[in-house]
Amino acid sequence: MHKIYYPYQEFKEDLKTLTEKIDQHFDAILGIARGRLSMAQMLGEYYDLREVYAINTIGYDDTEKKDSVEVFNIPNLQSAKQVLIVDDIVDSGDTLIEILNVLNEEYPHVTFLSASLFYKKTAKITPTWYVKEPKGWIDFFWSVDLRKN
Amino acid sequence: MHKIYYPYQEFKEDLKTLTEKIDQHFDAILGIARGRLSMAQMLGEYYDLREVYAINTIGYDDTEKKDSVEVFNIPNLQSAKQVLIVDDIVDSGDTLIEILNVLNEEYPHVTFLSASLFYKKTAKITPTWYVKEPKGWIDFFWSVDLRKN
Repeated sequence: MHKIYYPYQEFKEDLKTLTEKIDQHFDAILGIARGRLSMAQMLGEYYDLREVYAINTIGYDDTEKKDSVEVFNIPNLQSAKQVLIVDDIVDSGDTLIEILNVLNEEYPHVTFLSASLFYKKTAKITPTWYVKEPKGWIDFFWSVDLRKN
Repeated sequence: MHKIYYPYQEFKEDLKTLTEKIDQHFDAILGIARGRLSMAQMLGEYYDLREVYAINTIGYDDTEKKDSVEVFNIPNLQSAKQVLIVDDIVDSGDTLIEILNVLNEEYPHVTFLSASLFYKKTAKITPTWYVKEPKGWIDFFWSVDLRKN
């Protein structure tokens, strides 16, 4: 698959575009570890929200339970009303769907919104807001910058 | 106080320096929300560790209990042996000390290491590894980049 390097500069501009699209209030931001922690942090700074949390997932490529996702380290959202889940790329949508299942069950009183930089039209779920479609495999700066010289 | 802008490029180079200094094994990385999530994410990618967690703190400027720090959303570290706590700047050291107090009590079997980009010599605690001393107030890119045009 065609690999596309996604530098910090483009990330910054896309995050800015995302903030222009987001037109609903939220009182907490939830980043999915590892890939979305930078997003969660920068949006937290932008919206001046200290309520920035992380959640962990592990994806399994099991033939028995195909593409299952385990969700853990769920933060305490007891006092939240609307929570923004941030994602770098919604590909199949499996991870976002499983996170929403787990969170809706644990916190039925909370409205969960979602914002993603990239979104594939073939995904099983559409995030509330997204910036653009990926034109190949995205090599995010946070994955490759420390490895480069 | 003299304000110094700290761009992504410098962050990337300093993180690289930090990885050259870190000479002990660890099996999990813990970022303090919000400010250290980008660091935690990028170091997790570099060390190919999926065990990247976040912890929340709130600092209080109370006259009664001076400079107290509340630590919450502690991740499950039951199966960890050595955990690296990452910090952007160790200033007074109060936050890092309180985090270590809480974590050592909850997980006495875990060795906690710490790595910081900046470290003030006047701090009450010295991180295991750090890169440099701040020469003024650091305006981190993640705090200001979305606000700039």
